Amino acid sequence: MSGFVSFVSSGPGDPDLLTVKAVKSLQQADAVLFDDLSSGPILSHAREDADLVGVGKRAGRPSPKQDHVSQLLVDYASTGARVVRLKSGDCGIFGRLEEELTALRAAGIEYEIIPGVTAASAAAAAAGIPLTRRLTARRLQYVTGHDVTGELPEKLNWAALADGEATTVVYMGKRTFAALAEQLLERGLSADTACLLATGVSTPDQALSHHTLGDLPAHLAQLDTKAPVLILYGALAVADA
Amino acid sequence: MSGFVSFVSSGPGDPDLLTVKAVKSLQQADAVLFDDLSSGPILSHAREDADLVGVGKRAGRPSPKQDHVSQLLVDYASTGARVVRLKSGDCGIFGRLEEELTALRAAGIEYEIIPGVTAASAAAAAAGIPLTRRLTARRLQYVTGHDVTGELPEKLNWAALADGEATTVVYMGKRTFAALAEQLLERGLSADTACLLATGVSTPDQALSHHTLGDLPAHLAQLDTKAPVLILYGALAVADA
Repeated sequence: MSGFVSFVSSGPGDPDLLTVKAVKSLQQADAVLFDDLSSGPILSHAREDADLVGVGKRAGRPSPKQDHVSQLLVDYASTGARVVRLKSGDCGIFGRLEEELTALRAAGIEYEIIPGVTAASAAAAAAGIPLTRRLTARRLQYVTGHDVTGELPEKLNWAALADGEATTVVYMGKRTFAALAEQLLERGLSADTACLLATGVSTPDQALSHHTLGDLPAHLAQLDTKAPVLILYGALAVADA
Repeated sequence: MSGFVSFVSSGPGDPDLLTVKAVKSLQQADAVLFDDLSSGPILSHAREDADLVGVGKRAGRPSPKQDHVSQLLVDYASTGARVVRLKSGDCGIFGRLEEELTALRAAGIEYEIIPGVTAASAAAAAAGIPLTRRLTARRLQYVTGHDVTGELPEKLNWAALADGEATTVVYMGKRTFAALAEQLLERGLSADTACLLATGVSTPDQALSHHTLGDLPAHLAQLDTKAPVLILYGALAVADA
């Protein structure tokens, strides 16, 4: 008796940024495994008798190990349940999806992936600007601000990152962006390069502010927030309506 | 009397990949300006008395000029209407959004942008793989296969593109990918580099196939499709469940 796992992208936070497909999947689930970023309104799409299982980090508690989450997924699905694994943003983008997929394949459990709205799209939308520009920003790239150790990844493609004719979005970069910016400046990116800082995108805590590559690190050092931080830099459009 | 324009991302094609917010916006619209990629089921969310205005390319007819579309948007909004401008995928990604935003700002018309699911996320999801990988593909980039002339853009960041440790997604690259691949191979990317070809993602015409950088150009030369073509290459995960 083998269940089925739907990896459901929950979007950046606003429950209205769930896809219709995500809502339907939540409504049909016997169990929902969710990270802490998932909000109550999103989980409220689940049936009243569904198991809601938090597997994220909590204050004062260590994060459950990834292999523990994978095992939970396999265990729930093995009972024949329809399981939703809810992940914030688009689950294929910095969602650590692969470890869980591998565990399911090893256990012979079928799955689907429901794509969603990643935070970068929501941040640009909230700022009233596009992520790409026809003449000046025809390349869009997403990078993560830290590797498994929590530091700036050691091996970075600096020619890709120090490019003022792309839009670069740094996920989870609050702590390491100063180090990144220092290298970008050294490699020739202008201190005037436009930056957009977006915290808690599409949630009630949403805050957007405009900076430059030169002044953003100092601002980040003083930023006190527990909301997810997203940093965009490059040939950003300006919406000064 | 000034209306309001919602730029609504319609997602990759599957009506269930609309966001809840997009559905609500369509339901409230007095007028919907849509491109040809928008499907009937998506437009059916509009009210029966809403104006549905096609502004895309049609076979045998030249594409309406971008400034004509912008003028139409301004004209509709200036009647006080709630206007939805529907754009495929995420409208901030290769959606030529900026020209229309600029026209609205010049006319003093307020707008919002509703982010959505871009085709890259849907293609990877359909293939059962993530777009990023924790150790081998920590950078994700989107590029367009042609510039305003329809050719491969002249100025490309080759160090960014010829990177086997990123996932690169080429939008609208069917005609120019052979030229791109030739340059990537010259710049040291292996002919064995994994490629995923995705056409008509999330529509009834969806087709996915796995290739290598060496053999994909020959395959594309024989590909006869009118559906949108998306090409992913790099350190792709493999879902061989």
